[in-house]
Amino acid sequence: MIQITLPDGSVRSFEKDVTPYEVAVDISAGFARNVISAKFNDTVVETTTPLTTDGSLTLYTFKDAAGKKAFWHSSAHVLAQALEELYPNVKLWVGPAIDNGFYYDVDLGEGTISEKDFKAIESKMIEIARGKHDFKMREVSKADALAYYKDKNDYKVDLIENLEDGTISFCDHSSFTDLCRGGHIPNTGIIKAVKILSVAGAYYKGDENNKQLTRVYGISFPKQKELTEYLQLLEEAKKRDHRKLGKELELFTFSKKVGQGLPLWLPKGAALRERLENFLKAAQKKAGYEMVATPHIGSKELYVTSGHYAKYGEDSFQPITTPAEGEEFLLKPMNCPHHCEIYNSKPFSYKELPKRFAEFGTVYRYEQSGELHGLTRVRGFTQDDAHIFCTPDQLDEEFKAVIDLVLYVFGSLGFEDFTAQVSLRDPEKPEKYIGSDENWEKAEQAILNAAIAKDLNYVVETGEAAFYGPKLDFMVKDALGRQWQLGTIQVDYNLPERFDLTYKGSDNEMHRPVMIHRAPFGSMERFIAILLEHTGGDFPLWLMPEQVIILSVSEKYEKYAKKVLNVLENDEIRALTDNRNETVGKKIREAELQKFPYMIIVGEQEANDNTITVRQRGGEDLGTITVEDFATIVKDKIKKSLKTFN
Amino acid sequence: MIQITLPDGSVRSFEKDVTPYEVAVDISAGFARNVISAKFNDTVVETTTPLTTDGSLTLYTFKDAAGKKAFWHSSAHVLAQALEELYPNVKLWVGPAIDNGFYYDVDLGEGTISEKDFKAIESKMIEIARGKHDFKMREVSKADALAYYKDKNDYKVDLIENLEDGTISFCDHSSFTDLCRGGHIPNTGIIKAVKILSVAGAYYKGDENNKQLTRVYGISFPKQKELTEYLQLLEEAKKRDHRKLGKELELFTFSKKVGQGLPLWLPKGAALRERLENFLKAAQKKAGYEMVATPHIGSKELYVTSGHYAKYGEDSFQPITTPAEGEEFLLKPMNCPHHCEIYNSKPFSYKELPKRFAEFGTVYRYEQSGELHGLTRVRGFTQDDAHIFCTPDQLDEEFKAVIDLVLYVFGSLGFEDFTAQVSLRDPEKPEKYIGSDENWEKAEQAILNAAIAKDLNYVVETGEAAFYGPKLDFMVKDALGRQWQLGTIQVDYNLPERFDLTYKGSDNEMHRPVMIHRAPFGSMERFIAILLEHTGGDFPLWLMPEQVIILSVSEKYEKYAKKVLNVLENDEIRALTDNRNETVGKKIREAELQKFPYMIIVGEQEANDNTITVRQRGGEDLGTITVEDFATIVKDKIKKSLKTFN
Repeated sequence: MIQITLPDGSVRSFEKDVTPYEVAVDISAGFARNVISAKFNDTVVETTTPLTTDGSLTLYTFKDAAGKKAFWHSSAHVLAQALEELYPNVKLWVGPAIDNGFYYDVDLGEGTISEKDFKAIESKMIEIARGKHDFKMREVSKADALAYYKDKNDYKVDLIENLEDGTISFCDHSSFTDLCRGGHIPNTGIIKAVKILSVAGAYYKGDENNKQLTRVYGISFPKQKELTEYLQLLEEAKKRDHRKLGKELELFTFSKKVGQGLPLWLPKGAALRERLENFLKAAQKKAGYEMVATPHIGSKELYVTSGHYAKYGEDSFQPITTPAEGEEFLLKPMNCPHHCEIYNSKPFSYKELPKRFAEFGTVYRYEQSGELHGLTRVRGFTQDDAHIFCTPDQLDEEFKAVIDLVLYVFGSLGFEDFTAQVSLRDPEKPEKYIGSDENWEKAEQAILNAAIAKDLNYVVETGEAAFYGPKLDFMVKDALGRQWQLGTIQVDYNLPERFDLTYKGSDNEMHRPVMIHRAPFGSMERFIAILLEHTGGDFPLWLMPEQVIILSVSEKYEKYAKKVLNVLENDEIRALTDNRNETVGKKIREAELQKFPYMIIVGEQEANDNTITVRQRGGEDLGTITVEDFATIVKDKIKKSLKTFN
Repeated sequence: MIQITLPDGSVRSFEKDVTPYEVAVDISAGFARNVISAKFNDTVVETTTPLTTDGSLTLYTFKDAAGKKAFWHSSAHVLAQALEELYPNVKLWVGPAIDNGFYYDVDLGEGTISEKDFKAIESKMIEIARGKHDFKMREVSKADALAYYKDKNDYKVDLIENLEDGTISFCDHSSFTDLCRGGHIPNTGIIKAVKILSVAGAYYKGDENNKQLTRVYGISFPKQKELTEYLQLLEEAKKRDHRKLGKELELFTFSKKVGQGLPLWLPKGAALRERLENFLKAAQKKAGYEMVATPHIGSKELYVTSGHYAKYGEDSFQPITTPAEGEEFLLKPMNCPHHCEIYNSKPFSYKELPKRFAEFGTVYRYEQSGELHGLTRVRGFTQDDAHIFCTPDQLDEEFKAVIDLVLYVFGSLGFEDFTAQVSLRDPEKPEKYIGSDENWEKAEQAILNAAIAKDLNYVVETGEAAFYGPKLDFMVKDALGRQWQLGTIQVDYNLPERFDLTYKGSDNEMHRPVMIHRAPFGSMERFIAILLEHTGGDFPLWLMPEQVIILSVSEKYEKYAKKVLNVLENDEIRALTDNRNETVGKKIREAELQKFPYMIIVGEQEANDNTITVRQRGGEDLGTITVEDFATIVKDKIKKSLKTFN
């Protein structure tokens, strides 16, 4: 008999060689029907793998990330089989599961795959899936593995030659065999819906000197309905893609000459950013933050002191040298070391703490060009950064105050669905962490107290704390239900130590302050991207680049349009006029695309009656009213859309 | 007979071998008394040098920079003689004139020079000066020159060995001889006042592996009164040194770990900067500028395109590489290439021009560490940059509008004494410049028209234009009469060409826009340094970090002080309270040092009567009044100190 421990801590006894599937059945037949993969003692296993020792078993359904991974990994096998049957000269390379679906890289031998071929591949995959073929792992010697692929597939031979010696595993299903590490669903029949999404070129081993292979992307689901929903979401996400909206709304651009992943903010985007920054600055001022400004480089020594150089130096933008003096500088990847040096520029007493140094600090971090994506994955971005230096006793209050600020930010920007993830240390591995037990205890309690006091919907992740302190991350769901990590609040015992930060306590002794890193937006770039995708460009009224556009029926009413504009500008409503010699219909269509919350139309009647005709985006039209009444309505609405902090 | 042309263009005939001094006498005996040096056909000559050919002669008095140079160069000879007489083992190296005075580097052989020795050196110099010894140049062969110094002075031997072969010149006066290129005043008797300013170590040849010599700094004048005035100015300048004030007012700091020449802006300094930026932003908005935001690095290709890499690449911060992809980036030394790429991100029609892209862009330029100085010479600084892209026909209007903006900035910040320097091309060397004759003509005329229309006090410097276009620089005199170069406006035909910028004209053809670079402040760092030295920290009221400090007589009145603070804050007056348990006298003294424009004192009487007692910095005290009346007075004064633009 062996003892199997389940995730809820319960332990069940089974005969040796029991399979994860059989354990699932033992739990409940209904549950077992949905179990598609398993993990035994931190190792991915098949649901059919016989368990031979005591251990911990986790069973996954499609709802779990690990379940999806097994599902899509298995689907990649089916895709490969389909390609072999449809393209007789095909040679397979590798085909992993990815965040949303899977792909397979293949050498077609001859011909190409294009969109018109997708249907046939999907049909063939479904045909294979319906055969309900079991996925069966088997171990072979390296020599046998090489013999199997010799003369048949150079890519796999190369792959096997680069593996360590020892046994190698193959996976068979139906008539298909692939080199494979394992982690499959029980059989192909579980795959009910398949969609080939796209096809792209991919260099063999990612090296552009090698041959370009064909990468076929697909996704699959246990139910047709799930696929349909996914495709709808994809369609909607495409419309809201921040790269597309950013271009249409003229917010930002990229230039090859400036460099990949380095956004250039166009006037409307720069104004949007500034508005967001001013919004946070005003709240931060009330919350007792002080703005500082620091350079975008620092000497290598600064990052040796902070520990960042040892940890990230080799994978980062490389040092900048000076022509003659042998100095080395680094682009700053974060603002904390600079803020520590500001703290260190004068002595502090406990009476002066907390100090809260804030900066919209632009930092630079190297990302491989293949990983760059619009504004969500860039090489230069501006953090709405701040560092709070406080006594351990102040941690509780400070943490609560930061949460208030973050909630204010989310509320003002229409993010209502979010959870907090509290990352604590692993109490069984105290050696992994810096800082005294007492301080950790205090900090973790401060975070939990704050989460409870602020009525956050939170989950605790034990063992997920950074080595330097516990943290709280905000996970936000956007309008399409996608989850994003936004604001973060982190306690840090490490940098105060490394930079030898001190304050004089009430006991006249020198003490170490605690440091809190926090960024409600996270980064301006990423936040604006998410905000674009969340709102589809229909920002809260207070934030809109232009709140009103005044369309004159013809050039004759330019003067009246200007008069209307002046009234609005005096009321600090952001408006502009469109007096081009175009039809009103065309002007309206273009204004729709630019998402102006209000369109004002002025023609002969309006000019004579001293009125305006107002169309409201996504709301009822306000009809013909005076511009003063309109201004009052807009000001009221702005006020409602942006509450003051505190 | 030879023909001598004078700077006013007049030509006089003289016998061959006439001396500059004799020409001066021919002009006027009074003038000749003040002439101390001369230039003949672009070569510095002595006033006693016989002129043997036709040519142009310029005569200098102490008022001219060239006159000062000869005066201080000659004084260095006198210093050297004095040192030889006072320190028998001394060996001279070199002793040039500098911007303010002169120095001599010497190997003392034994002993040191310290402040207590200055008096003796000054006395000895005056004693020599009173001898009215003529400075006499003579030519010697290299061999004779070496023979003269052999066994006597290795430094001079080394110097001579490194000179080109041919004749070498010596200068004698009194019993003293020095290796010298020339450019002296007629005799030592003109030196009436001398001050040794300081002594410092200086490595031989500036190489720290060599022996450290002693550098003695001094200054001298033709009148005792001039020296007295200079020393007073020096004393006042020391008090106003922006590095001293920056520390006292807690505006900025430097950190060795962050790096030399990279300022860290402390809360009060960052707020000051932001206030200046917001002030300019508001004016720029009215003037039709649009803010953009660009990264602090750019690919090397960007600067190859702009031409900056070829010109400055080797002397700059060196390229940043990425770990794997072989990319090269540079810290941006200017914002223009980025703004050109923004212009290029969409097509423009002539109807949409001018485009005015503005950015407070932080740039990085390598300076040798020895040349760094506070905020005036740094390695990273923020330009209040903007680039105007316009048609050649719009240049005239745009230039005038930029001058309006610059004058508004200077006026709001108390710089009233300034001149404009207009730099035009050399019409005789058209090959030195890029751009068509017609466009240069238009641009130069636009600048001159604007200077005249705006009634500027300007000087024209022909041949001083950059190769890419003419420019106008503002030279500002500060409260101590020192001159600084501040704002600049430059026309550029080069970058539009290099970046292939275009617009569609009314003729439906593509045309090149003209570009104007402009920065009213120049750089935030340098401007704040100059503003600090100009105002001594007493900024215009609208700009003061804190306008009011409320001093409570004792902790008992903290609550009332807070009430007063609230009233002021509601009126957007920047105030803070000092409720420490200290005497009012101490609080006032500290507040004086921090230069608060207003101090409010609140004690028992004030709290009872609901009043405040107000001290005004550098003005009459306002006595005891209500806080509401005080707020009105302050708001009025702020309004007066900062006029709105346009």
